[in-house]
Amino acid sequence: MDRYDRQLRLKGFGAEKQALLRKSSVLVVGAGGLGVPVLQYLTAMGVGKIGIVEPDKVSITNLQRQVLYRTSDEGKLKLDMAIERLQELNPDVVLVPHNVWLANTNALEIFMPYDLVIDCSDNFGTRYLINDACVILNKPFVSGAIYEYEGQVSVFNYKGSATYRCLFPEPGDVPDCNSIGVLGVLPGLIGCYQVNEAVKVLCDIGEPLINQLMTINILDNTQQVFTFQNNPDNHLITALGDNYGDDVCSQQPLQHLTVKELQTWLEEGYDFQLIDVREKEEWDICHIEGSQHIPMRRVQAAIPGLTKQRPVAVICHHGLRSKAVAQHLLQSGFNEVFNVTGGIHAWALEVDKRMDVY
Amino acid sequence: MDRYDRQLRLKGFGAEKQALLRKSSVLVVGAGGLGVPVLQYLTAMGVGKIGIVEPDKVSITNLQRQVLYRTSDEGKLKLDMAIERLQELNPDVVLVPHNVWLANTNALEIFMPYDLVIDCSDNFGTRYLINDACVILNKPFVSGAIYEYEGQVSVFNYKGSATYRCLFPEPGDVPDCNSIGVLGVLPGLIGCYQVNEAVKVLCDIGEPLINQLMTINILDNTQQVFTFQNNPDNHLITALGDNYGDDVCSQQPLQHLTVKELQTWLEEGYDFQLIDVREKEEWDICHIEGSQHIPMRRVQAAIPGLTKQRPVAVICHHGLRSKAVAQHLLQSGFNEVFNVTGGIHAWALEVDKRMDVY
Repeated sequence: MDRYDRQLRLKGFGAEKQALLRKSSVLVVGAGGLGVPVLQYLTAMGVGKIGIVEPDKVSITNLQRQVLYRTSDEGKLKLDMAIERLQELNPDVVLVPHNVWLANTNALEIFMPYDLVIDCSDNFGTRYLINDACVILNKPFVSGAIYEYEGQVSVFNYKGSATYRCLFPEPGDVPDCNSIGVLGVLPGLIGCYQVNEAVKVLCDIGEPLINQLMTINILDNTQQVFTFQNNPDNHLITALGDNYGDDVCSQQPLQHLTVKELQTWLEEGYDFQLIDVREKEEWDICHIEGSQHIPMRRVQAAIPGLTKQRPVAVICHHGLRSKAVAQHLLQSGFNEVFNVTGGIHAWALEVDKRMDVY
Repeated sequence: MDRYDRQLRLKGFGAEKQALLRKSSVLVVGAGGLGVPVLQYLTAMGVGKIGIVEPDKVSITNLQRQVLYRTSDEGKLKLDMAIERLQELNPDVVLVPHNVWLANTNALEIFMPYDLVIDCSDNFGTRYLINDACVILNKPFVSGAIYEYEGQVSVFNYKGSATYRCLFPEPGDVPDCNSIGVLGVLPGLIGCYQVNEAVKVLCDIGEPLINQLMTINILDNTQQVFTFQNNPDNHLITALGDNYGDDVCSQQPLQHLTVKELQTWLEEGYDFQLIDVREKEEWDICHIEGSQHIPMRRVQAAIPGLTKQRPVAVICHHGLRSKAVAQHLLQSGFNEVFNVTGGIHAWALEVDKRMDVY
């Protein structure tokens, strides 16, 4: 047990929690930007069994963030390379390869033997599939996502807690990092946060992000923890759906508003509510005339003060926080909800150049 | 440039910032828990030249957090193993080995050729030495530290910003993780934050943590950014000192108070100020009768309302935030400042058992 000495010495962890890790089995879906740090630290820390779902091959474009692979791995299966390297790091851990694309035909069978699932995928279809399989099998899962300079982490379906569908009733249109790009270190950071949440659940320590979404902006180091509602209807799933493509549909789709469209609405006096969900410090720097300031973490409490009969547009700095709030409003019974794409940042660049200090 | 495609596509980064990374040189002091993720992501992202100061060998106890090494590396030089693996990840990067313990006899010469230094050491002596060498050579450095379930990140001496001595005028008595233990993933997280700060400085993007300390608690996901003063005297260093051992001295040492001693003071009506620097949510759960609530980020503004003539004791949850505040108060001219060791947590365990829900 010399290997785990630093965890055995740690107050609040020790031999008892190490034994829980050792007895645990975790399935990691994806061995890419998020999956690599998740796999490295789960393996190092001594989780008993780790399954990896990853049918893809190493590409040169992976290497600015997927630090487990080598330049000479190009074209080889990520799964083979990952298992070889992880086993060298810690031979105690049982590593189980799942060389398939996750699908509604295999998800339940693959998930069955594991205590917890970590979603390291990069698209909404897979996230809904993971969610539904976990709800059916009554397993918790840890979710991570990145977009430009922001990341999100949450724990879903843990002892009846809210599911991914409670937070995102319908898929967003956030493109994956293959299209929009990413700084190499961001998935490293979010992957570490996912490991931390997984360890909290497996070892019953600390406060996992249950019914909560944590968002992190790496440009200005703002971090927010946003509470959302657990909708009991989302726990009633008994079978996987037929279609987990990006066109998974919902009743009330979230709508999008460009800053130019927002400008037109404002100039023409269109009857709608514009809510700015940034923090006070950000609001004080600059804001749009006529917008109402409700910081993200106050939105839940402010809902009774808003009318569901008029359209609502939500804005933040870049459009990520506002998107989560907008989806929450849809779920809370608002009919017409718009997310302002690009946020105040786009507004300052494209509409009101005087704000460009921001 | 396929390798960096995801950074080239990223809005606000692109070819211009990638070229800045490529032209940069970074020195990483320590290739252990913090150093490993720092080295992995700096290398992956394409920093031009990376120096590594690390004379130590791989031990089995390193492997629960130092994910770059293998079980079969035990007894080998970390430096050799790190350079081999990092070069396999990215052959573009020039890796420079410094197989020495950093000392006042070699620090200036080693630091000279680099644009920025990242402190991945684990003791106060090395941190002061890095600070002083960076001040003398006018180089910014990124600091990271971990203690139990908490971590800290800051950027020092960047374009005249505050130095490590402005935040910590005298060394603390926080033991390193070899004595107190650490969860494997915590240095991964803090190391990623250090990389992020380094990239912000090197590429001139976002808002680096200048004159600010970010603290993160991984048990409850609280994150705080605390602003501290830049003391011009600390920029006047012209030569390294003779002694960077743990007994580096200062005028006004920070004093420590156990929870039992605090209990005695309170029971005997000793004339002092007890300040609780936790957040409101934490304070609401429980607090010590007679303590004054000033959340950490409000301390600077509250100083004029405190008297410097009476002793001040500072308390938080575990004793890390309170320590930073206590040191800040010493620096602000308070004469007798005590940090309550173990914080409210120790108080609940050892003094007021009714609080044990906490």
